[in-house]
Amino acid sequence: MQDDIQKSRQAAGKAAADLIKSGMLVGLGTGTTAAFFIESLIERFQNEHLDIKAFPSSERTAKLAIAGGIPLCGENSVTSLDMTIDGADEVDPQKRLIKGGGGALLREKIVASMSKELIIIIDRNKLVNVLGGCPLPIEIVPFAHHATLAKIIDLGYQGVLRLKKDEQPYMTDNGNYIIDITFLNRCHTPEKDQAILSSIPGVIETGFFFNMATKVIVGQADGGTLVM
Amino acid sequence: MQDDIQKSRQAAGKAAADLIKSGMLVGLGTGTTAAFFIESLIERFQNEHLDIKAFPSSERTAKLAIAGGIPLCGENSVTSLDMTIDGADEVDPQKRLIKGGGGALLREKIVASMSKELIIIIDRNKLVNVLGGCPLPIEIVPFAHHATLAKIIDLGYQGVLRLKKDEQPYMTDNGNYIIDITFLNRCHTPEKDQAILSSIPGVIETGFFFNMATKVIVGQADGGTLVM
Repeated sequence: MQDDIQKSRQAAGKAAADLIKSGMLVGLGTGTTAAFFIESLIERFQNEHLDIKAFPSSERTAKLAIAGGIPLCGENSVTSLDMTIDGADEVDPQKRLIKGGGGALLREKIVASMSKELIIIIDRNKLVNVLGGCPLPIEIVPFAHHATLAKIIDLGYQGVLRLKKDEQPYMTDNGNYIIDITFLNRCHTPEKDQAILSSIPGVIETGFFFNMATKVIVGQADGGTLVM
Repeated sequence: MQDDIQKSRQAAGKAAADLIKSGMLVGLGTGTTAAFFIESLIERFQNEHLDIKAFPSSERTAKLAIAGGIPLCGENSVTSLDMTIDGADEVDPQKRLIKGGGGALLREKIVASMSKELIIIIDRNKLVNVLGGCPLPIEIVPFAHHATLAKIIDLGYQGVLRLKKDEQPYMTDNGNYIIDITFLNRCHTPEKDQAILSSIPGVIETGFFFNMATKVIVGQADGGTLVM
């Protein structure tokens, strides 16, 4: 990672950690920027003895929190969270997001939908005028996944099954697969594409997050932040 | 099962089996009525040496087909099917269905969506003017399922997690859970309810099947059938 991108993400992560107050149930996102937030949160948790519980959106993130001593909520012990902090692959001016490059989109979306506030932390390279410069991941059921991919392609999308290095399908924490959709000329109708894609039986969830982000914190290389 | 209901279902199953032609890729539904169809299909397959391959919508159904000697397609070897025969919990005059009482709704919907024709076989007790006399099953992600159920209830639905006899959650062939929604006064806005329920992160698929059934065969106790 380039040094100034790393510093930008660190700045966003630290600013988000500063929003957490004692008594909160905190949803934890997944990915490199979310990891910077968790690092800063652990620092505050240890120095200030914050009384918080965390709800992780992936096995990876759970491990980071546990390593820092932050107590986790039982997965089914709560039904709502005070605040979730997460990264994003792209953010447009209406705070619509594409998420899931790291493969955790379904749990991230469930955790975000449980939260009173969703704070998105990014470096400024993630800000776009039009979504779709990055692939759109969609989580699908493994059963008959060739047929699901064929349907997506028949509808005019460029989709590929995400593979691991050993050429086997990448498997999510939920035991499902991911199809990555590439937009040749960006995605100018995300709501329409969301409706089309999510109506396909076999598609569980897309990486589009609409009307979910309460605030977007854009980190700067000098340690400052901009808030949308 | 009452004798005349059994005879009605057998009649519908036999009439559906008579639609299958040599050379077809056939989707096989799941449940008691689908099992009568499979029984009749096996009889034709063995007597007439039909050249067919079957695509089962559940592990249970796969076992029935294998026991009868019918060859199965590999799960990812085909992306479309000629005809699928399946039961339903309820059918309304617009051929809208509720399916999934047996817990196989997601695979049934994927198989139905792969098929050029979907033939629904029922006894006449399944015909209703308004859907929602039976529970609507929805398949959900196990992760944070208490939160998903809480969201469904917050939206005004009466939902319960389906349990096995040992009080553990019923698990589908896909490793997911089922929530059964009960309508106090039937469901008068199924498209709206479908849109609301399927937009909840954590909900994979509902048991509503709209614009999918090509033909509905209603079996009669005297061995005859009515076709819608």
